[in-house]
Amino acid sequence: MPTYLCTSTTGRLTSEQKSKIAGEITKIHSEVTGAPAFFAQVIFSEVKAGDWFIGGAQLTHDHIFISGHIRAGRAVVDKTRMIKLMSEGVAQAADVKNGRAVWLYLNELPPRQMIEFGQVLPEPGDEPAWTAALPEQDRAFMQSLPVAT
Amino acid sequence: MPTYLCTSTTGRLTSEQKSKIAGEITKIHSEVTGAPAFFAQVIFSEVKAGDWFIGGAQLTHDHIFISGHIRAGRAVVDKTRMIKLMSEGVAQAADVKNGRAVWLYLNELPPRQMIEFGQVLPEPGDEPAWTAALPEQDRAFMQSLPVAT
Amino acid sequence: MPTYLCTSTTGRLTSEQKSKIAGEITKIHSEVTGAPAFFAQVIFSEVKAGDWFIGGAQLTHDHIFISGHIRAGRAVVDKTRMIKLMSEGVAQAADVKNGRAVWLYLNELPPRQMIEFGQVLPEPGDEPAWTAALPEQDRAFMQSLPVAT
Repeated sequence: MPTYLCTSTTGRLTSEQKSKIAGEITKIHSEVTGAPAFFAQVIFSEVKAGDWFIGGAQLTHDHIFISGHIRAGRAVVDKTRMIKLMSEGVAQAADVKNGRAVWLYLNELPPRQMIEFGQVLPEPGDEPAWTAALPEQDRAFMQSLPVAT
Repeated sequence: MPTYLCTSTTGRLTSEQKSKIAGEITKIHSEVTGAPAFFAQVIFSEVKAGDWFIGGAQLTHDHIFISGHIRAGRAVVDKTRMIKLMSEGVAQAADVKNGRAVWLYLNELPPRQMIEFGQVLPEPGDEPAWTAALPEQDRAFMQSLPVAT
Repeated sequence: MPTYLCTSTTGRLTSEQKSKIAGEITKIHSEVTGAPAFFAQVIFSEVKAGDWFIGGAQLTHDHIFISGHIRAGRAVVDKTRMIKLMSEGVAQAADVKNGRAVWLYLNELPPRQMIEFGQVLPEPGDEPAWTAALPEQDRAFMQSLPVAT
């Protein structure tokens, strides 16, 4: 039920690295929040180094930027722990020289302002009852989606 | 006064479908919130299926993701109703096989932290007084913009 | 410690204009908030005019959209002043015909939900103590980054 947008410079990440990063983010989000893994969305986009500035100067060092959008309602301590784990996991998956290369922001949205698979999302913790109450066809579709392990 | 970012896989949406989707979003946002239609911004971008993951696995099913950024201050019930209407309207405009293809998130921002056409935005409901108080030239410009009907 | 995403139509901004815009945003953010300039990230992306709609109609006028993501905790009056200065600075740097061309949104995130250079960010105002407490290697890296003046 979260979406993570991952931005890197053109050609920086291989397909294999993207796949690893998506797997890491999905696994960590699911482990820390308890949300089902089949909802985690990760989208990659690329930007030319000439279109990327830090401190007003063109980007010259290794750098990956991830912007996450998750349901509101988790403990602060869990969210901070989660972004630490993710930034380390992404750094490793992307084979960066050091952990300083990864920036990660976490934005929160009220679940009632999010629709996935045609359904308004439940509050954190209410996933089991929500899943049980889904129309059979929708639940079957969600559970049929491939999930990386 | 809202912005909706619509992401689809490369080549998924025709120009006509994009136009229809923008029209649907604009119309529904305006009808539910009462905000003037000439402020609704819809931006489309495309992502290769190989750069898009759900559940840690590469995207294989039909899927459209919309991220809306609106002024804070509306009733919860209206916002939930709005995203339901929008996800249905977009599903139809995009000719998706089923409503499960559309994900839609709604992020809220304080109007005082938003500038459009050079003007800090009013609170929801204050649009008429705000419009009346605009410099004549600015109001004329906004009202001269084409609005799809 | 903020990120600003700047969207314009394909070919609208020259490299020089992008550099000027990044410089303006970085300078104003730093002056108004007191945050160190080396953390300000500005990313440019382009969209075809045919993929951009306002009022449900395809974009035909000069238009630049900036979406800022900053740490929560500043005074409302400062944030509004900042976006006014930025929209004016960007309009000038982009050589737009009038200030109406620039839209700017400011989204706020809790600093504890943001990681930069491998470090969870401090609350606004706590930067000096935070910087002093960094591992020597990390502090040296950050301070070695080029900053436009």
